Amino acid sequence: METMMLKTHQCGRLTKADVGQTVTLNGWVQRRRDLGGVLFIDLRDRTGIVQIVFNPDFSGDALEVADRARNEYVLAVKGTVVQRDPETFNPNLPTGEIEVRVQEIEIMNAAKTPPFPIEDGVEVDESLRLKYRYLDLRRPEMQKTLLLRSKAAKLFRDYLDGEGFIEVETPILTKSTPEGARDYLVPSRVHPEEFFALPQSPQIFKQLLMVGGLERYYQIARCFRDEDLRADRQPEFTQVDIETSFLSQDQLLGMMEDLTAKLLKETVGVELQTPFQRITYADAMNKYGSDKPDLRFGLEIEDITDIVSASDVKVFANVAASGGVVKALNAKGCASWSRKELDDLQPFAARYGGKGLAWITVKDGEWRGPIVKFLKPEEIAALTERLNVEDGDLLTFSADKKKVVADVLGNLRSKLGRDLGLIDDSVFKFAWVVDFPLLGWDEEAKRYVAEHHPFTRPNEEDLHLFDSNPGEIRAQAYDLVLNGYEVGGGSMRIYKREVQEKMFAALGFTPEEAHEKFGFLLDAFEYGTPPHGGIAFGFDRLVMLLAGRTNLRETIAFPKTASATDLLTDAPSLVEASQLEQLHIRTVPKPGSKPAPAAPQAQSGTETAPAK
Amino acid sequence: METMMLKTHQCGRLTKADVGQTVTLNGWVQRRRDLGGVLFIDLRDRTGIVQIVFNPDFSGDALEVADRARNEYVLAVKGTVVQRDPETFNPNLPTGEIEVRVQEIEIMNAAKTPPFPIEDGVEVDESLRLKYRYLDLRRPEMQKTLLLRSKAAKLFRDYLDGEGFIEVETPILTKSTPEGARDYLVPSRVHPEEFFALPQSPQIFKQLLMVGGLERYYQIARCFRDEDLRADRQPEFTQVDIETSFLSQDQLLGMMEDLTAKLLKETVGVELQTPFQRITYADAMNKYGSDKPDLRFGLEIEDITDIVSASDVKVFANVAASGGVVKALNAKGCASWSRKELDDLQPFAARYGGKGLAWITVKDGEWRGPIVKFLKPEEIAALTERLNVEDGDLLTFSADKKKVVADVLGNLRSKLGRDLGLIDDSVFKFAWVVDFPLLGWDEEAKRYVAEHHPFTRPNEEDLHLFDSNPGEIRAQAYDLVLNGYEVGGGSMRIYKREVQEKMFAALGFTPEEAHEKFGFLLDAFEYGTPPHGGIAFGFDRLVMLLAGRTNLRETIAFPKTASATDLLTDAPSLVEASQLEQLHIRTVPKPGSKPAPAAPQAQSGTETAPAK
Repeated sequence: METMMLKTHQCGRLTKADVGQTVTLNGWVQRRRDLGGVLFIDLRDRTGIVQIVFNPDFSGDALEVADRARNEYVLAVKGTVVQRDPETFNPNLPTGEIEVRVQEIEIMNAAKTPPFPIEDGVEVDESLRLKYRYLDLRRPEMQKTLLLRSKAAKLFRDYLDGEGFIEVETPILTKSTPEGARDYLVPSRVHPEEFFALPQSPQIFKQLLMVGGLERYYQIARCFRDEDLRADRQPEFTQVDIETSFLSQDQLLGMMEDLTAKLLKETVGVELQTPFQRITYADAMNKYGSDKPDLRFGLEIEDITDIVSASDVKVFANVAASGGVVKALNAKGCASWSRKELDDLQPFAARYGGKGLAWITVKDGEWRGPIVKFLKPEEIAALTERLNVEDGDLLTFSADKKKVVADVLGNLRSKLGRDLGLIDDSVFKFAWVVDFPLLGWDEEAKRYVAEHHPFTRPNEEDLHLFDSNPGEIRAQAYDLVLNGYEVGGGSMRIYKREVQEKMFAALGFTPEEAHEKFGFLLDAFEYGTPPHGGIAFGFDRLVMLLAGRTNLRETIAFPKTASATDLLTDAPSLVEASQLEQLHIRTVPKPGSKPAPAAPQAQSGTETAPAK
Repeated sequence: METMMLKTHQCGRLTKADVGQTVTLNGWVQRRRDLGGVLFIDLRDRTGIVQIVFNPDFSGDALEVADRARNEYVLAVKGTVVQRDPETFNPNLPTGEIEVRVQEIEIMNAAKTPPFPIEDGVEVDESLRLKYRYLDLRRPEMQKTLLLRSKAAKLFRDYLDGEGFIEVETPILTKSTPEGARDYLVPSRVHPEEFFALPQSPQIFKQLLMVGGLERYYQIARCFRDEDLRADRQPEFTQVDIETSFLSQDQLLGMMEDLTAKLLKETVGVELQTPFQRITYADAMNKYGSDKPDLRFGLEIEDITDIVSASDVKVFANVAASGGVVKALNAKGCASWSRKELDDLQPFAARYGGKGLAWITVKDGEWRGPIVKFLKPEEIAALTERLNVEDGDLLTFSADKKKVVADVLGNLRSKLGRDLGLIDDSVFKFAWVVDFPLLGWDEEAKRYVAEHHPFTRPNEEDLHLFDSNPGEIRAQAYDLVLNGYEVGGGSMRIYKREVQEKMFAALGFTPEEAHEKFGFLLDAFEYGTPPHGGIAFGFDRLVMLLAGRTNLRETIAFPKTASATDLLTDAPSLVEASQLEQLHIRTVPKPGSKPAPAAPQAQSGTETAPAK
């Protein structure tokens, strides 16, 4: 067996209370200073940094050994905790009032000079950090985020366990879905020409577990989506997946609020008020132009269609006449914007599909702007009241289809919220968006499609609309939003056969088509399905927001880049031709590319639980 | 919103203490009996069964509605808890002293007749159970096992969290390994001709997390192996994956013992003695013929090579002379075996690679058997002492290469343990097998190969053997065994460059080859790698043993069959040609098979955490 000097204490946990103790520490050299033959090393472990001192008076040979240590060397030291001279206290370190006088040292390992400094706020290209992720992870801010993530997972589990939820693992190797375009496929050695698919979510299985009488299920589940990547997506991501039987939507949301409040309290020390604000989808779109509004500030959008429907501003009148809407946003205090700033509103609107943004500045009681001359006095009066117009305001107007107006003014609202400093970054403003529409009209297919999924339960009082106006049916579907992000979402599920049949009819499926599409799940529902529903929290994003980060990759130990590659392991990569042969597949070279060589860049052996 | 009668109480939790209470219950009809116009229904939920009663005297219209309910209908009932007449107490039910007199009922859902009864010990083909897994999961023994699994996971997490381990999720979409023959591959849409691989274990990442200074990591991780399937394997399986820095092997094993003891106490109520027995690999192989011995019984194998090396039993002498071993197992009390039973020993030995099994019966002081006449009196005397021979014993002998003898007698020992009733099924006998060999000789490749993996740390006192006798080097590798199963295993890792170089040299790798094979992991080790090591528990198997089951599939909610298919979802399956096209692959039909059609059997929509 080895005889190593193994830690008795954590670097970052030593305090004055430990003075006089003999301690063994293990850690990495953060930095070293040689002051007149006395060597000071900041030794770092997961818990923090402590100063260790080598002095010919008490360190003997250890000083000589220590002198060989460079940044990121791994040291084991044994020494005595002493109080520092008060004039050398370091108020920036929790351990700043003590130091450890070293008597023994072992250099556990040497280190090459890292490609970037191991410290917070390091200014280095992200791709370099990802390639050397094992060094990036040594930086305190990364460790703090991973600790927060681990703690958040624990809090979710503890809460759900306490409420009788059973953790069940559902398959990763499963079946391709009808909208399988985003599925990752896995060829099978045993079954030529057949493929598994990686799950986009455990949706099927969570519902089957309810059919199976488990009543309350949860899982912190890995999910996969092979799609065009944006900065804010990862090909594999994690959701806290929850499903329950015999609860109403109100009961489930109440429980999730309680859970969220506990989570926030334990992770970021914030006390949330429950119940959370509940806002209907319709109100969210009307007032904030978004189904995930940032409610940390007001700045509500106002519908002025009624005021301007007969306006001499032709675009307003025309839009109103053709079934569109005219809405306004009062940018308080922005009347002093420069011409350039005002001009920039047009490309801004265009980015979100708008044809333009009309504006009016109100300065010294005077309304100025291209459309002012077309406004009748009574319109100005009505607008003044509706928009609470005061001196110094900038009024902005969008007239278009409802959806376009929402996008334009919703995004303008977000921008103004940030630019005008209306947002308190310390606030975590949760809300439920409820009463989502059950169905959306697909212009291309000329039919209704499920907004959530085809098993989403309609509001009971809207059931009659299946026959008259399916587009108006509200669903028992809900999103949890936080500061303008969607951090969770789910729905109650249809469990009654007759409702499911109405739903399929609305979607234009014959019973045969429905069965072909949804197969065994419909079979399962025939055997006594309880009323059930659920929710999934986007765990990566939630952790990101709790950690105050803005990039999902910061919350994931080994993330992929925006182009879905792992810069550390160099995955995906070429594989041996023999592997493909065994899987009964061949690659199809891109036109013009050279044929695939067969030598993979390999990695190491693996330790697999032998119990399998 | 819906107005449903939602449960206020759990069926299985009602007791005499609830008498007089008005309760609402939700559950499934387990069975119904109509006794002279009074209807009795056993209502089942996750917690158990309670009898509910419909009587014209107090149920009114509810009786009529209830009469339509059949087995597995989902009911909501509201009624009063009353004590039963003592003569109708049901001692088999925890709720057997009470019943609920129903005033209101709602049939929440109807059910077709299930293809098998929803009860324990159901005698039905497993493939039917897997196809209708959602009904199989309603059976109490399945729910009990899944609850145990969930509880065990919680206990692991709570313990590890308490010891400062951080839960970190490692990638599922990762890189193919050198021994990639068992890798599941995933084609990439974005990167033609390149593939991700699903991890056989998080081995690389757990070690990188130690390089990254996380110090203590755990994860209940899904792992994947695409290999020939045996009854006891699953293509995807779960391991509790653990890695730590700055601990010695003894410290880690001690901690894992403590964890295991808590797990056993909380799940099955068994108090384990710690520390667990530690047995060297050499001793385990010598005494029990297995590196995962069942230590619930003795019946040790004895080496008698020294006694018979000059024997007139030619096979013994020859084997001894050629470097093999002769060993014996004394099957106590088996002298009375029939001729057939004795004859069956030969094919039994053959099954494990043995050329035969010599035997001697000892009855009324007389030794009988084919080899007896060749034994010298002093050999008989020595055997009598070594094997503790008594009247009634059956002595069995195997002479061959060490490995063959171990296999034959080890398996005979296991069989005898079961057949002779030596095993107490209520005992959980854990032990550590330690000091595994570091290297094994590969006859085919004519070189040493790593027994565990190439980063396994050798015992310090064996380091000198790299130059003289690498095959004798013991590793700091260990397995946790339970009742003849391996339930965990791991090793300390090499962290010193000079040791790693010796290891690669022993494996016959040049530095260039090593780097080609292990790439970025070796790079990572250059930057200050702490001493580290870890372990992985086979979670499925551990749960199986805790639950007293013998089939891994019983411990997994949605398992795959021995031929790696999911009978419920019918995965793997054919996919759309367009999907393959987007993935830049083509299938290679088996010779003689028809071309693949393109119509997948589809399933449902999914709810994915929108936060991604």
